Amino acid sequence: MEERCFVTGAAGFIGSHLVEGLLREGCTVTGFDNLRWGRRASIQHCLDDPRFTFVQGDLLDPQALAEAMRGHSLVFHLGASADVRSGTDDTRLDLENCTVATYNVLEAMRANGVKKIVFTSSGTIYGELGSQPIPESAGPNLPISLYGAAKLACEALVSAYCHLFDIHAWIFRCGQIVGARMGRGVIRDLLDKLQRDPTELEVLGDGKQVKSYLLIEEWLEGVLYAYRNANHSQCQVFNMASESPLRVAEVARIIVQETGRKDVRIRYTGGERGWPGDVPEIRFDMSKLRRLGWEPKHSSAEAVRIATRRLLGEKK
Amino acid sequence: MEERCFVTGAAGFIGSHLVEGLLREGCTVTGFDNLRWGRRASIQHCLDDPRFTFVQGDLLDPQALAEAMRGHSLVFHLGASADVRSGTDDTRLDLENCTVATYNVLEAMRANGVKKIVFTSSGTIYGELGSQPIPESAGPNLPISLYGAAKLACEALVSAYCHLFDIHAWIFRCGQIVGARMGRGVIRDLLDKLQRDPTELEVLGDGKQVKSYLLIEEWLEGVLYAYRNANHSQCQVFNMASESPLRVAEVARIIVQETGRKDVRIRYTGGERGWPGDVPEIRFDMSKLRRLGWEPKHSSAEAVRIATRRLLGEKK
Repeated sequence: MEERCFVTGAAGFIGSHLVEGLLREGCTVTGFDNLRWGRRASIQHCLDDPRFTFVQGDLLDPQALAEAMRGHSLVFHLGASADVRSGTDDTRLDLENCTVATYNVLEAMRANGVKKIVFTSSGTIYGELGSQPIPESAGPNLPISLYGAAKLACEALVSAYCHLFDIHAWIFRCGQIVGARMGRGVIRDLLDKLQRDPTELEVLGDGKQVKSYLLIEEWLEGVLYAYRNANHSQCQVFNMASESPLRVAEVARIIVQETGRKDVRIRYTGGERGWPGDVPEIRFDMSKLRRLGWEPKHSSAEAVRIATRRLLGEKK
Repeated sequence: MEERCFVTGAAGFIGSHLVEGLLREGCTVTGFDNLRWGRRASIQHCLDDPRFTFVQGDLLDPQALAEAMRGHSLVFHLGASADVRSGTDDTRLDLENCTVATYNVLEAMRANGVKKIVFTSSGTIYGELGSQPIPESAGPNLPISLYGAAKLACEALVSAYCHLFDIHAWIFRCGQIVGARMGRGVIRDLLDKLQRDPTELEVLGDGKQVKSYLLIEEWLEGVLYAYRNANHSQCQVFNMASESPLRVAEVARIIVQETGRKDVRIRYTGGERGWPGDVPEIRFDMSKLRRLGWEPKHSSAEAVRIATRRLLGEKK
């Protein structure tokens, strides 16, 4: 793959793995990140590669963005607030760092004649569509978090730019992505809590929430597979998640098990949701990507177990 | 109906009819409009009613908006760019005047404890879903205009605010709304062109585009019906359009007929779309609102004919 890739959110958990993957594929890569949610340490090791350049910059600075993007052929747009919960307290957070930021990315693409974008959207755009597996065609899309609302706004912008300005897009509605270097998410949270207090583990909600977990390397494989093989229309949307659902109580059980601790008391804070804006149950229908020829190999439970082991390994 | 209503875009075509209707229903009404797309003349006659107040203000001025909204119980949020086409040349237009404006409206509601919003969305959010009638549950929603992208972004924001801040919303995905005082739209355009040159009528596209036309008084009736009768969930979405589709060629034919002119040569500019971002074919499935007990009485063709007569009457 000989693309000149521009990666926003490059110093984040997913972004840093993507940079590694693209370099392995033979691409030239520029990483762009404001380091508000990302960490320089995540991509430090890539700086030795002469095909990698890092630019510290903000997606809300249209000029810096457009300048940094010059000369690239493909944008991977991952940059966004990394925290679904914060948007409720600071309601401008996602509007700016996701919606307006994406507008700026698309304008920078127009200014530089970049015609291809891979965009990481989120299963949160579905809102609460019930307990059936959700295909990409499901609607109405009524998100219940400002993070989800902003991701849907971005999808809509990407789609309109595709049509109006002859851009091609691959949009991925992701579930939870897990693996080494995770700075956030339920696994990280629970491990941190266990380190602070090895006797009692507080879990948000009643433990019955159903989520989907995908290993970062499977995410990378799936995204690159779809990018290479789905070329039939201008703007394409794919679910990108594990189809096997997993209850939060089971996540907690796996994590406690992997730490090797005995007698940990699990205490649920209670309530149908982990936090305001949390979708209690989401199941992804992966038929579309399966028909294209790809599906994840690991179950959600396996992904959580493997990711936990890696994170525990990091701590040593 | 004893609501203290706050109407954004009150001096627009739809807004001014809504103000009249709400006053007839016995409501107190504040109209808010920056008069960029609306006209003071549209609501001048309402100013005699002591229950009506007009505030000239911009939705992009959060403080003025929050102050004007104080003391109201129900927001009708119609304010937006009135022109689907302009968004392609000025790509910030809809992002600001629709998406950010709606964020400001929702924040002003929070600040003032207003718990109910009626939002006028648009069938443009569906993008190109083909020639089948589209129910509200259709997806994926990939709009092809920046107007449609912004309306979808607004729906998503409204939905998230409903969930996070205990607001109730009625969202209407409207087709073409027609009637007296229309400042824009195909009927107005064609009448203006005929007045300039009564021998030849230029029609954008190949005339085969299929749209849906609803009379403004039916829109008003349907919106108030749904508002009164749909209370089962926090955020509800309804198509609001005529189910009978109408080709643009037929619209042109009705308009020429109603002007009484003979020998008008109709010249099509050609092409599948009227303009970039134009959805060539949209049909609405109105089952949801019909199940609730309401549907429009007039066909699209009747609506176009009646609206044309009214607009011709205005010119005299």
